[in-house]
Amino acid sequence: MLHILALFSFLLVSSSHAAVQDFCVADLTAPQGPAGYSCKTPAEVTADDFMYSGLSVPGNTSTLFNAAINTAFVDKFPGLNGLGVSMARADIAPGGVIPMHTHPGASEIILIAKGSVTAGLISSDNTVYLKTLKEGEIMVFPQGLLHFQVNTGRTQALLWVSFGSPNPGLQILSNALFSNNLPSELIEKTTFLDDNEVKRLKTLLGGSG
Amino acid sequence: MLHILALFSFLLVSSSHAAVQDFCVADLTAPQGPAGYSCKTPAEVTADDFMYSGLSVPGNTSTLFNAAINTAFVDKFPGLNGLGVSMARADIAPGGVIPMHTHPGASEIILIAKGSVTAGLISSDNTVYLKTLKEGEIMVFPQGLLHFQVNTGRTQALLWVSFGSPNPGLQILSNALFSNNLPSELIEKTTFLDDNEVKRLKTLLGGSG
Amino acid sequence: MLHILALFSFLLVSSSHAAVQDFCVADLTAPQGPAGYSCKTPAEVTADDFMYSGLSVPGNTSTLFNAAINTAFVDKFPGLNGLGVSMARADIAPGGVIPMHTHPGASEIILIAKGSVTAGLISSDNTVYLKTLKEGEIMVFPQGLLHFQVNTGRTQALLWVSFGSPNPGLQILSNALFSNNLPSELIEKTTFLDDNEVKRLKTLLGGSG
Amino acid sequence: MLHILALFSFLLVSSSHAAVQDFCVADLTAPQGPAGYSCKTPAEVTADDFMYSGLSVPGNTSTLFNAAINTAFVDKFPGLNGLGVSMARADIAPGGVIPMHTHPGASEIILIAKGSVTAGLISSDNTVYLKTLKEGEIMVFPQGLLHFQVNTGRTQALLWVSFGSPNPGLQILSNALFSNNLPSELIEKTTFLDDNEVKRLKTLLGGSG
Amino acid sequence: MLHILALFSFLLVSSSHAAVQDFCVADLTAPQGPAGYSCKTPAEVTADDFMYSGLSVPGNTSTLFNAAINTAFVDKFPGLNGLGVSMARADIAPGGVIPMHTHPGASEIILIAKGSVTAGLISSDNTVYLKTLKEGEIMVFPQGLLHFQVNTGRTQALLWVSFGSPNPGLQILSNALFSNNLPSELIEKTTFLDDNEVKRLKTLLGGSG
Amino acid sequence: MLHILALFSFLLVSSSHAAVQDFCVADLTAPQGPAGYSCKTPAEVTADDFMYSGLSVPGNTSTLFNAAINTAFVDKFPGLNGLGVSMARADIAPGGVIPMHTHPGASEIILIAKGSVTAGLISSDNTVYLKTLKEGEIMVFPQGLLHFQVNTGRTQALLWVSFGSPNPGLQILSNALFSNNLPSELIEKTTFLDDNEVKRLKTLLGGSG
Repeated sequence: MLHILALFSFLLVSSSHAAVQDFCVADLTAPQGPAGYSCKTPAEVTADDFMYSGLSVPGNTSTLFNAAINTAFVDKFPGLNGLGVSMARADIAPGGVIPMHTHPGASEIILIAKGSVTAGLISSDNTVYLKTLKEGEIMVFPQGLLHFQVNTGRTQALLWVSFGSPNPGLQILSNALFSNNLPSELIEKTTFLDDNEVKRLKTLLGGSG
Repeated sequence: MLHILALFSFLLVSSSHAAVQDFCVADLTAPQGPAGYSCKTPAEVTADDFMYSGLSVPGNTSTLFNAAINTAFVDKFPGLNGLGVSMARADIAPGGVIPMHTHPGASEIILIAKGSVTAGLISSDNTVYLKTLKEGEIMVFPQGLLHFQVNTGRTQALLWVSFGSPNPGLQILSNALFSNNLPSELIEKTTFLDDNEVKRLKTLLGGSG
Repeated sequence: MLHILALFSFLLVSSSHAAVQDFCVADLTAPQGPAGYSCKTPAEVTADDFMYSGLSVPGNTSTLFNAAINTAFVDKFPGLNGLGVSMARADIAPGGVIPMHTHPGASEIILIAKGSVTAGLISSDNTVYLKTLKEGEIMVFPQGLLHFQVNTGRTQALLWVSFGSPNPGLQILSNALFSNNLPSELIEKTTFLDDNEVKRLKTLLGGSG
Repeated sequence: MLHILALFSFLLVSSSHAAVQDFCVADLTAPQGPAGYSCKTPAEVTADDFMYSGLSVPGNTSTLFNAAINTAFVDKFPGLNGLGVSMARADIAPGGVIPMHTHPGASEIILIAKGSVTAGLISSDNTVYLKTLKEGEIMVFPQGLLHFQVNTGRTQALLWVSFGSPNPGLQILSNALFSNNLPSELIEKTTFLDDNEVKRLKTLLGGSG
Repeated sequence: MLHILALFSFLLVSSSHAAVQDFCVADLTAPQGPAGYSCKTPAEVTADDFMYSGLSVPGNTSTLFNAAINTAFVDKFPGLNGLGVSMARADIAPGGVIPMHTHPGASEIILIAKGSVTAGLISSDNTVYLKTLKEGEIMVFPQGLLHFQVNTGRTQALLWVSFGSPNPGLQILSNALFSNNLPSELIEKTTFLDDNEVKRLKTLLGGSG
Repeated sequence: MLHILALFSFLLVSSSHAAVQDFCVADLTAPQGPAGYSCKTPAEVTADDFMYSGLSVPGNTSTLFNAAINTAFVDKFPGLNGLGVSMARADIAPGGVIPMHTHPGASEIILIAKGSVTAGLISSDNTVYLKTLKEGEIMVFPQGLLHFQVNTGRTQALLWVSFGSPNPGLQILSNALFSNNLPSELIEKTTFLDDNEVKRLKTLLGGSG
C-alpha cells in the first residue's frame, strides 16, 4: 500500500519538477552573455560545484603593495554563476596596502579576521569616510566608489571580502593609469600629474608610452 | 503616387526595425544562462510559440496528496522565456492538499476557479497567515516563503496559479526531506524530528539512508 | 527542561529574525516611489492583506466594447506591492472585444476559463501572431506590444489574466487617441487617419479638440 | 630593484584580474538570450567596438513621414550589449513627423539639436502631455507609452534620442495596424475605425487582408 | 593664480556633483518601500554609518541548537540599505547545528573561519548536495533552497556568512512549523508528519494549536 | 445613443485605469529611497515635468579643465525619476579636458555634436581603448570604468552625454584624491604618488591634510 502511494507521489513530483533549474553552475567553455556564463546541465552538477578551496591558503605578501588579493569570482568558482554573490581574501603585511581601487560591478563588505586595518572610501562629492577597524568589525563600500585598506597594525592582517555580484570587477587605480601604454601626455592632461611623476610610476608599475 | 509613398515608408521601417527583438522564445536545445534559455531566431517564431494547451486537462488527483499540479513553466511553454510570468493549474480532491512548499524564484497568486480552499503562508518571523477562499477569490504568497493549500470544501477544487517568473521553481518540503538519500541522522539533527518518524516518512516518500 | 530549551530557541529566533521583512503590503496613504508604495508595518499586516475578493463578480459587459475588465493591481490589492505579480478578469459578451491595447510595465498571460477567444499580438517588425483559444488554453503577450482579444464564440467568455508586475499599466489605443483633448490635427499628422474619422471617434469616445 | 617590484605587482594584478569582464561586446553570430547577445572574448575586443559612426549622416527625409529615424541599437552597435543604453537620430523636415509610437523596452529622452519640435505623450489614464521644444531642450517619454514628435518649425529638425536599454524596440502605430495582414475586420472591431478608413490606410502603408 | 584655478575647479565640481547620491544609508524611522528604507540625508552620514561592530563577539551557543546566529542585515547595519550585500556570523559548538532553513531573498556563501562543518543543500528536484568543509573553504547556497550546517568537528566552529541582499530573510523550518499557532491538523495534512510528533515539537519549540 | 455608449466606455476606463501610474515624477522634498525619490501625485504632474531647459546654454569653459559639465540628472530634472535615463552636456575648449573619472551607477554614451575629441577608457585588466571621434560619432563607456575626453581639435567641442540611470553619479579622480582632507600619507601609500606631487595637487585642487 505505502509502495503504491509512494509511486503516486513520484508521478506528481516528476511531472511538476521536471525542468526546474534552481542554479546555473557556469560552463566556462560555453558562450558568456551579459547575465553570466551558460549553465552546466543539472545532471553534471555535483556537490563539488558548490564549494571552493582556493581561498584557504594565505597569499604571498611580498609584492609591491606588501599585500595579496585572492578572488573567488565566478571565473574561478563556477557555482556562483547567476547567484549575485562572490568573495575574496586579502592578506596584508604590516604597513602593506590594498591600493586605491573600485569595483565597477558590486558593493563590498570587508570583515577583519585578523589584525587591524584603516579603510576609507570617497564619495562623488569628494567626502572621505575613514575608519580604523578591529578584529570582527565590518565595513561596507558602495558600488563603484574609490576605496582602500591599509594595515595600520603591527601584525599581518587577514580580511574576508564579500561582494554582491559573482563578477564585481576590480580596477586598481595605479595599475589602470601606469601599467599600460596610455600616453603620458593624456595621463597628465586628465589627472594634472606632472610628467616626471607619471614617468616614474610607469617605470615602477610596468607601463610604457 | 501612394505606391511610391508606401515604398518610402517601407524604407523607414526596414532601416529602423531591422533587428528589434521584442521576445525571446526559448530554444530548449541551445545553451541556457542565468537569465534563461537562448532565443529562437525571430524568423522561426510562429503564433503557436505564444500559446500552450497543456493546462486544459484536469490532473489525476489519485496521488498521495489527493491533488495534482501541472505547471506551464518555460521548460514546457518556451514562449515565456525572459518574460517574467508563468502559470500552473492545481486540481485538489476533497480533503486533498498541495503540501507545504516554497517557490525559490517568484511570488505566486492563486485564483479559486472551483471549490473552496484553505490556504496559509508563514513569514520569516514565524507568523501564520491563514485564509479560507471561495470561488473567484485570490491570494498572494510572497517569494520564497513556506505555504500550502488544502481543499476544505466538499467538491473537487480547481486553482489557477500565476507566478512572476518563467521559472519560479517548486520545492515540496516533504519530498525535499524524505524522497532522497539525505542521511537520517542529518535530517534529525537539523529538524528535531525523531528517528522513527524520519524513517517512516522516508519509506512513504521513497527516500533511503 | 524542555521549557528551558524552548526559551533558548526563542532567544536565537528573536536575535536573528527581529527585523526581517518578507513582504511590503502597501500603505496606500503613504509616499509612493519608483519601486512601489511604502510598506505597512509588519505588526499591522493580517491575513486579509494577502487576499482579494474583487474579482469574484462578473463585470457588466454592457459597454461600448461589450466587455468588462476588472483589475487586481496594487492600488486595489495592496498585498501585491513589491511582489512582481498581479491579476485581472475580463468578461466578454459574444462579439465583444478587449480592444487593441498595451501594458507598458509587464508581460501578460491570459487563460480562457469559459468560452472561446481569438487573440492577437503585433511585434515591432509588424508581424501579426493570431490564435483562437479554447477553454483551458493560455497565451502570452510580451511587455509593451499591441494586442487584443475578441470573443469569437457564441457564449460569454471569461478570461483570467496574469501580469508580471503589481502595476502593469493599461493603455487602450482608442481611448488614448480619442478620449482626451489631443488636437485632431496632431492625431491626423501622426497616425494618417483622416479628419472625418478622427472627429467621429472623438465624439464616440468622449474626446474634444 | 624597481624591476623586481614591478614583477611582483604584475603577479598581483594577474592573479586578481585574470577573468574579470567589464563589458560584453555582442557576437552577433552567437546565440542570443533574454539579457542580450553572447559576448566576444575580451581578447578580440578593440577600441572600434566601443564606437559607432552610423549616426553621423543625416537620414533621407523623403519618406511618407517627411522624416527619417536611424537607430544605434545593439544590433548595429554591438558594444552596447548589456550596458543599458542606446541612441538614435531623427531628422524631420518642416511639417514632418515621427509618427505615434511606443518603445516596449525603455524610456527615452530627446534632445533638440536643431530646429523646433512639438512633442507629446499620452499616459494610461489618457492624459495628454504636450510641449513645444527649442534647441537645447530635452523631454522624457516613459517606457511603453504612446508618443510622437512633429516638426512645427520652419527648418529641418535634428533630434538626438537616448534610451535606457541597448534594445528598446520601436512599434510605430500605423505600421503595426496597417502594414501587415491583420484582417480588416479584427482591426475595425478592436479600434472602432471604419472599414473605408482601414482599407485606405492598408493601401497607403502596404498592408493586406 | 593657483587660488583662482582652484576656485574654477570648485565651480565645476559643485555644478556637476550637487545632488549625486552614491549610497542610501537607512533612516530606520522613515517609511520603508519594496526597495528598502528611506535614506538619511547625505549631510547626516558619517564614517560610522559604513561600519558595524556587532559581529565581533561570539554568540552564546547554549541554545537548543548548540549554535548562535548573529545577523548584520540592514535593520542592524543601516549603511547596507540598497547596496545588495549583508553578512552574519554563526558560532556552532561541537555537535551543534544551524538547522534546516531558507533565505527567501538572497543566495549565501559561508566561509569556515574555524573548525570543520558538514553542510548540505537540497534542490527543487530533491537532489542533496553534501560537503564537509575545512578552515578557509567556502560553499554557496542558491537563493530560496533548503540548506543546513552541522559542526562535525571536535572544536567550536566559526562561520562568516555573506548574502547578496541587505535583507535576505531567514526562515528556519522547525520554527516555521512548530513555533506558532498553525493548527496541528493542517501541519499534519501538509507535511505527512504524525500527530504525536507534531505535538512533541510544538511543545519543544513553543508552538500551540 | 452615442452619448450613452461613450458613457459606458468611460466606466470601463475609469474602473480599469483608476490608479495606474506610468511614471514617478520626483517630489524632491519627500523621502528618497534606494530606487529614487517619492513620486508627485499624478494630479499634480504637468507637461512641464517631462521637459528640461537647463542644458540649452553652453557652460563656461574658463575652469581649471578648460571645460564645463552640466548635468540633467534626476535632482535637476525630476521627471527622470525611476525611468532609467539621464543626460548631460559637456563643453570643452580647444585643449580642454573632461578629466579622468567614473560613473558608479550607469554606462554612458557620448555624441560629438561639434568639434573633435579623443576619448579613452581603461578596463579592469588595465587595457586602454582609445579613439578620436568626429562630429556625429558616438562612443560607449561601460559602467564604473575610468574614462576621459580631450578636445584634440582646434575648435570648441560640444558633447551630448546619455546615461542608463537617472542618477549615474560622477567621481572625478583628481578631485576625489586632492580636493578633500584625505591625509597625504594615506594617498601616497595607496597610490604610490610621491609626497611633493600630492601636496602640489592638494594646493591646486583645494585639498588639505
